[in-house]
Amino acid sequence: MQYQPPERDAQFLLFEVFRVQDLWPEIEAFAEISEDLVRAVVAEGGRIAAEVVTPSNQPGDEQACTWDNGEVSTPDAYKLPFTEITGGGWLGLAGNVNYGGQGMPKMLACIVEEMLWAANTSLYLYGTLTVGSSLCIETHGTKQQKETYLPKMYAGQWTGAMALTESHAGTDLGIMRAKAEPQADGSYHISGTKVFITGGEHDLAENIIHLVLAKLPGAPDGTKGISLFIVPKFLPNEDGSLGERNSWSSGSIEHKMGIRGSATSVINYDQSTGFLLGEENRGLAAMFTMMNYERLSVGLQGLGSGELAYQQAASYAKDRLQGRSPTGAQNPHAAADSLLVHPDVRRMLLTQRAYNEAGRAFGLFVGMQLDLAKYNGDRSAQELAELLTPVAKAYLSDKGFEGAVMAQQVFGGHGYIREWGVEQIVRDTRISQIYEGTNGVQALDLVGRKVLRDGGATVRKLVDQMAQTRIAQVHQIEFNEALDRLVRVTASVVGRAKDEPNLPGAVSTDYLELMGLTLYAWLWARMAELAPQDEFGEAKKATSMFFYQRLLPKTHGLERSIAASAHALMDFPDDLF
Amino acid sequence: MQYQPPERDAQFLLFEVFRVQDLWPEIEAFAEISEDLVRAVVAEGGRIAAEVVTPSNQPGDEQACTWDNGEVSTPDAYKLPFTEITGGGWLGLAGNVNYGGQGMPKMLACIVEEMLWAANTSLYLYGTLTVGSSLCIETHGTKQQKETYLPKMYAGQWTGAMALTESHAGTDLGIMRAKAEPQADGSYHISGTKVFITGGEHDLAENIIHLVLAKLPGAPDGTKGISLFIVPKFLPNEDGSLGERNSWSSGSIEHKMGIRGSATSVINYDQSTGFLLGEENRGLAAMFTMMNYERLSVGLQGLGSGELAYQQAASYAKDRLQGRSPTGAQNPHAAADSLLVHPDVRRMLLTQRAYNEAGRAFGLFVGMQLDLAKYNGDRSAQELAELLTPVAKAYLSDKGFEGAVMAQQVFGGHGYIREWGVEQIVRDTRISQIYEGTNGVQALDLVGRKVLRDGGATVRKLVDQMAQTRIAQVHQIEFNEALDRLVRVTASVVGRAKDEPNLPGAVSTDYLELMGLTLYAWLWARMAELAPQDEFGEAKKATSMFFYQRLLPKTHGLERSIAASAHALMDFPDDLF
Repeated sequence: MQYQPPERDAQFLLFEVFRVQDLWPEIEAFAEISEDLVRAVVAEGGRIAAEVVTPSNQPGDEQACTWDNGEVSTPDAYKLPFTEITGGGWLGLAGNVNYGGQGMPKMLACIVEEMLWAANTSLYLYGTLTVGSSLCIETHGTKQQKETYLPKMYAGQWTGAMALTESHAGTDLGIMRAKAEPQADGSYHISGTKVFITGGEHDLAENIIHLVLAKLPGAPDGTKGISLFIVPKFLPNEDGSLGERNSWSSGSIEHKMGIRGSATSVINYDQSTGFLLGEENRGLAAMFTMMNYERLSVGLQGLGSGELAYQQAASYAKDRLQGRSPTGAQNPHAAADSLLVHPDVRRMLLTQRAYNEAGRAFGLFVGMQLDLAKYNGDRSAQELAELLTPVAKAYLSDKGFEGAVMAQQVFGGHGYIREWGVEQIVRDTRISQIYEGTNGVQALDLVGRKVLRDGGATVRKLVDQMAQTRIAQVHQIEFNEALDRLVRVTASVVGRAKDEPNLPGAVSTDYLELMGLTLYAWLWARMAELAPQDEFGEAKKATSMFFYQRLLPKTHGLERSIAASAHALMDFPDDLF
Repeated sequence: MQYQPPERDAQFLLFEVFRVQDLWPEIEAFAEISEDLVRAVVAEGGRIAAEVVTPSNQPGDEQACTWDNGEVSTPDAYKLPFTEITGGGWLGLAGNVNYGGQGMPKMLACIVEEMLWAANTSLYLYGTLTVGSSLCIETHGTKQQKETYLPKMYAGQWTGAMALTESHAGTDLGIMRAKAEPQADGSYHISGTKVFITGGEHDLAENIIHLVLAKLPGAPDGTKGISLFIVPKFLPNEDGSLGERNSWSSGSIEHKMGIRGSATSVINYDQSTGFLLGEENRGLAAMFTMMNYERLSVGLQGLGSGELAYQQAASYAKDRLQGRSPTGAQNPHAAADSLLVHPDVRRMLLTQRAYNEAGRAFGLFVGMQLDLAKYNGDRSAQELAELLTPVAKAYLSDKGFEGAVMAQQVFGGHGYIREWGVEQIVRDTRISQIYEGTNGVQALDLVGRKVLRDGGATVRKLVDQMAQTRIAQVHQIEFNEALDRLVRVTASVVGRAKDEPNLPGAVSTDYLELMGLTLYAWLWARMAELAPQDEFGEAKKATSMFFYQRLLPKTHGLERSIAASAHALMDFPDDLF
């Protein structure tokens, strides 16, 4: 399988759409980042993704991880690319410079992350969990904890894992049972069984740092009684070397639909030594600091898969000769025309392009808010990041999956057999809609928490911001209608939710899609306005026309569907399901 | 995994919605079929599906088929249920009574087929190919061919397979290369390599009857030069016993995303003995006789998967305790409420129900047209069957896949691991959107061939028929709007297609969905009208409200999207994909 890093598109977005050359000088930590450096990072990240990581993707799926008496082996093909990713410092790209990180903007990390996800989703999971855990330690750890863990984790010498879920407690963390008992030396003994631990045990790193949620004795019930602990595989000595092996073990690994090269463990903690991270009973809040970043990253996983799938489908459609154009033979000297003559094949390819390219822009827009919030303490940016994170996680992953399924459809029967690798993309990317909070949970977070908490004020600010940018005139009327629709629907939902407690959940998935389409309408109109006078720009403009004429109209149905009362869902008698 | 045959729903549709007790006496061949017999067939088919076939589903996926030097072994778990299916005469249910078939209506077969698909898609593929091949022989074979093959095939002693595709010729059969050379004894020598042959080689039957498309010497180019041949694995002796082994062999089997218990072979024909079926150069037409039936059956495959997936999701949602109702605890003595309190979970379950139950009704409606056309020579029914077959194949399989993906989402992480079996449903049902003509090909068949060939006249007849039935008053306004929309959009497409050759393909997928939703609106309004005054009826009415309020509104967006010119697709420069 081939993968072409979307380097040109990344540069267009960074320098022409979001103009980081104007933005970053306003952020002290980024003031020294030169345009050349950015281009070099994008190019080198792309090279590693395409040349070093991509070749491990299919072999890793074939071999999969194996478990033997608590030891987990990753696919042979993973060793070299993981060494290259970690050795190149890519896991510390946006890490804290005081502890060995490179201090680069999240916006830039978004580009690199997308490429690594695309190249090998299973392999990069070991990376992203390390990045996420590092961020949590950076934000909530003591100075000593940061000094002990961060340099090793940025270097990928040690990897991270998050142990939240228990078999009876998935989305509902409040009912978890894992226990933490304080010890005389200030450490804790952690006991319990956690499931679905991505990268919980494996052979790619010398140490694995678990962040574990557990309850202290006498802690309040529910989510207010959960604390967070660092529970390493090997307890670090004072000099940073590896000490005693901790008393947790991998009880088994899951056999999954996809991401078969990613080891998903059951972990049994048996009086395992842990260290409190952050404050007692504030573990969930600490975990959620990281969540905005992780959820965006899972969205980027979907985007990467969508891009990889598109590239396979477009390449196949160009090469495969089947049938004739409705307007007469286009390739008269061959037995058939290419798949590209068929309008419905083009519909699928353009749908993929339209969602991928707007999705890339959207991911960067959210990354920009995270940068402004983190480094400039920008409150509006923080609110916007909180509003848009569930949209990015759910919408990018939904469209990534749809795009992968469409690519399979372009391939026909060849998309269903393993040989071409397209069915693997479908299987691998499916998980992005489920983990890190299912997309239903994201939608409820968007409507029930983010939209309603300020009566839609942040949505209106976002709409104002979109309305004030210069966009391509050709889209102005439909764009204004789309903004009006979002404002109108938001006001309706906010108003009705007061009397109907079930309304937010009832409309949440449709509302999230309405918001996604409206954001993409903005980004497409903006990209069309800024598209250069060359082939790249021509493709952008044609795709924006396609988006406006064929995809945006879906908002008409969504508005009507959201207008329905929650009774449409709640009246069905429970026992008749 | 548990499966509950939808027996009550089947009886409601047969006796209350479509009133077969009034219809079948008008068809001579069915005049003797009693209500008791119908109920017994449905009950016994359901029992075999649920009790005998379902247990083989997951083990078959785990073990999969294996190939060894041309011999193909099916999963161990398949032997017993296949013997029960064939021994019970189920493959001959709708077969010709003169050759050992039971002569039952397609409508009744639809119910049984759905249940067998649901119980084990991979296993029933061996059956459906046999049913389809039998139908082709029944329609085009000589008396001797019918006598030789049909009794054995109805009994499942011999199974069938269709060899159409070559590696360079999938959808475009016109460019195939397989050759047939006439021999002095009236037989032919068939040579060439065919791929994707479902059930081409396996160990479930003593003989395998291939129907092979190939070209005679000097045949016209393209689809007008293709003939159809019977190419058995063992050549039958005059007394019906097995004779010489034919000279074809399985070169390999495919490793696929799903239906891993179904053997998909590459078959190498090397001067293999074949017998002409039907007329020279009319092979594609002969094959297409069967296609209406096969395509409906693939739609029923999607429906069966959708039903199986729904049942798993509903059962899980009732049992799994996570979170609390937005209106306060519903299950205060437990740690959490069931998933059913969450509106978005109900949205997914009701979406599945709404598509499954309307889909079941739709399948029967198409089956009814096939019965009327075949047994009463009803020309209108034949036209309606031709119009609706591509809709049934594509829409039922699309909704089956979506339903399986939704079920996975209800399960969360447990939907992604193999243990629960839900991810298998997703993998298995995905193929139904691809084979027997991709759903894009179905959509083009619908618009480019069926709608345009009579300028939309058959669509208008269908609309008149729908408008004349008595429906639930509560849906009258929206139903009328939906019919008007279909008429308006059809007229627009017919008009615009005259000047825009690419238009049919450009709008085909959206148009097919619009037609599917409109048909389902009719069937839901009709079912709501006829729903009995009991729990079953209450569930029907609640689901119809959900369909009208939450799913039908999608038609608003589809109308707008279909209004776009084909330029939205065709203007994008080919080399920029």
